[in-house]
Amino acid sequence: MLNHDRLDGVYQALADGTRRSMVERLIAGPASVSELAKPFEMSLPAVMQHLQVLDDCGLVRSEKSGRVRTCRLEPSGLRDAESWIVQQRSAWEDRLDQLDIYLREQSTSAERNTRGLAT
Amino acid sequence: MLNHDRLDGVYQALADGTRRSMVERLIAGPASVSELAKPFEMSLPAVMQHLQVLDDCGLVRSEKSGRVRTCRLEPSGLRDAESWIVQQRSAWEDRLDQLDIYLREQSTSAERNTRGLAT
Repeated sequence: MLNHDRLDGVYQALADGTRRSMVERLIAGPASVSELAKPFEMSLPAVMQHLQVLDDCGLVRSEKSGRVRTCRLEPSGLRDAESWIVQQRSAWEDRLDQLDIYLREQSTSAERNTRGLAT
Repeated sequence: MLNHDRLDGVYQALADGTRRSMVERLIAGPASVSELAKPFEMSLPAVMQHLQVLDDCGLVRSEKSGRVRTCRLEPSGLRDAESWIVQQRSAWEDRLDQLDIYLREQSTSAERNTRGLAT
């Protein structure tokens, strides 16, 4: 069962290239905030703001040990976001299959009618 | 190759329950704006605004014939959104597999060392 409020937050979080890059980085393993910030020409507060969005929707969790805050990916949010899209794609393909069956039936029946008229 | 600007727009569009419901409805086939509006307690301008967001990112296309505007789903945007998430999930599973192999190797080597010490 999908939690639609959570889905709002996860898609909102993924609607930004910097945050998607952070997720891609965290797939490789946990990272400190400064490691996550390194590839971006961005102030630390801006990076922290992006991390907050990822934390709010539960995609990323972080822990502070001494002066270092380490972030790690929490994959269940990605799974929910994938699940909704896969459901839609699968429903779309079912509809195309049904349309295909309908069109074939129509074309066979039209062919029969044409033959009927010709004989 | 994923278009990241488009991906921003598609995830942004999906970050709203009303717009996701409209996508779900359009999966079943094209619909007029008033058909799409029916399930929501919402003014027509509000519905049009949601449709504009879906149109801007290319998830939905519409055509006006006489006084009726008919909307249909354009599935390539959903495919891109699915594709990015599936890539991440697959990279995540690869990392878990590698971690699993590493941990098994460590445990085998620790076992060997223990045996070595015991004999």
